[in-house]
Amino acid sequence: MQKTDLIQQIKAKKSFLCIGLDTDITKIPAHLLAQPDPIFAFNKEIIDATADLCVAYKPNLAFYESMGAAGWESLRKTMEYIPSHCFTIADAKRGDIGNTSSMYAKTFFDPTAAGLNFDSVTVAPYMGSDSVTPFFAYENKWVILLALTSNEGAKDFQFDAFENGEKVFERVLTKSSQWGTDQNMMYVVGATRGEAFAAIRRLVPEHFLLVPGVGAQGGSLAEVCKFGINKDCGLLVNSSRAIIYASNSNDFANQARAAALLVQQEMEEILKSNGIV
Amino acid sequence: MQKTDLIQQIKAKKSFLCIGLDTDITKIPAHLLAQPDPIFAFNKEIIDATADLCVAYKPNLAFYESMGAAGWESLRKTMEYIPSHCFTIADAKRGDIGNTSSMYAKTFFDPTAAGLNFDSVTVAPYMGSDSVTPFFAYENKWVILLALTSNEGAKDFQFDAFENGEKVFERVLTKSSQWGTDQNMMYVVGATRGEAFAAIRRLVPEHFLLVPGVGAQGGSLAEVCKFGINKDCGLLVNSSRAIIYASNSNDFANQARAAALLVQQEMEEILKSNGIV
Repeated sequence: MQKTDLIQQIKAKKSFLCIGLDTDITKIPAHLLAQPDPIFAFNKEIIDATADLCVAYKPNLAFYESMGAAGWESLRKTMEYIPSHCFTIADAKRGDIGNTSSMYAKTFFDPTAAGLNFDSVTVAPYMGSDSVTPFFAYENKWVILLALTSNEGAKDFQFDAFENGEKVFERVLTKSSQWGTDQNMMYVVGATRGEAFAAIRRLVPEHFLLVPGVGAQGGSLAEVCKFGINKDCGLLVNSSRAIIYASNSNDFANQARAAALLVQQEMEEILKSNGIV
Repeated sequence: MQKTDLIQQIKAKKSFLCIGLDTDITKIPAHLLAQPDPIFAFNKEIIDATADLCVAYKPNLAFYESMGAAGWESLRKTMEYIPSHCFTIADAKRGDIGNTSSMYAKTFFDPTAAGLNFDSVTVAPYMGSDSVTPFFAYENKWVILLALTSNEGAKDFQFDAFENGEKVFERVLTKSSQWGTDQNMMYVVGATRGEAFAAIRRLVPEHFLLVPGVGAQGGSLAEVCKFGINKDCGLLVNSSRAIIYASNSNDFANQARAAALLVQQEMEEILKSNGIV
């Protein structure tokens, strides 16, 4: 998906919600366990109930891999089922030497390889440019690079300052934004880092930011948008557990829709007050 | 596998060779393509031909994932086939927020999950302590954390210096060595970084180092050992392409053995001259 198409979807749906499909066999409603593929059955109902309220879905690869080959098949079916008007993110945190990153790019972007046709993949920056650039070989596909993450451990390295005073996450933004463009790169910036959004927007004013950490991790949507929003919106705000596990009953999909609708309505107000819709 | 068992294997086999199973369907001998599972058929012959010459195998996850569910099944069969006297490394470069890293740990370490029972997994340090510590929940399992990688892009961030003069890879070693011990952590240090081994050994004298980059990437075994070896050996030196693709003919397994034997013989001399065997 191209950037212009994503912006168009945000305006049409009045939403910049990304729903994280962290689908865990131990957390889904019990009645689904009788299905031949409970993970896919759960995802299908969630997608049916929410696809008009969100602009993106983000399957978390760990949850599928933990079920081995069967999990990869559930992922493939889920990807096939997601409507083409939704942007898709393989939340995989990959990154390796060039020839290996090329294989990861093939995995997620080339449908003739693993049967997957993601729009984007999350990548870790530690190994530098040649671990990232192989993903750009695929047209209209995106790298979403970790910049400032939502977890406690982000404080271990990401805020540390170099000799020139620049912080690690700032140098990641500055250097890596030369490797690609705002048409094929986004950045992960945790919602729990509200105070850093202003600094980040000075470095990457045009790039989309993928923002996890609203919901179960405690980040505030209003705080994120105050400094993070740009003229195109420029934000994909993710919620996983707070939406997909809104209820554990037979009625889980309706409850997930209700939770997503609350977020979408808050987003619509923000988009309106910023003159985007 | 415990550290004492690994050291015992090194002494018994007079080898600290790790063979990288970067098995690529486009590079294996053509006659194997008629097999029901060509990737497993290739790995099986490589393992049969080399298991007495190496102490570890390192499947590179990207190559298996690029074949989707079928690739994960090839990986599972390969893991089941590797003899228990060989240490196993999931070269996956994972790392995410705590609950997701827990799922990755389950994937690679809990055989009832994805059918995999790896001894270790490679992890990227960017997200800090809570992305690493969930892997320690499994006894006798290891995190192999990226410190200084063998690729060109390593120069983008890993050598940069903080305000106190400490380089990024040095801070990764210093901080992370507090999260685990030399009984459950190793570090990736590229063979192309010979000059850095002395500095690294001052910071982590006891830890095992996994050393990629000998062979196709141009690193020198003698250079690595000069500063990297410790009283227990403390090194697992990986070679992937130079061994498994030594030949593309029907005779590929014998050629792989011949290539592995040359490395093992060089290693035996090094172990002898350091008084380890």
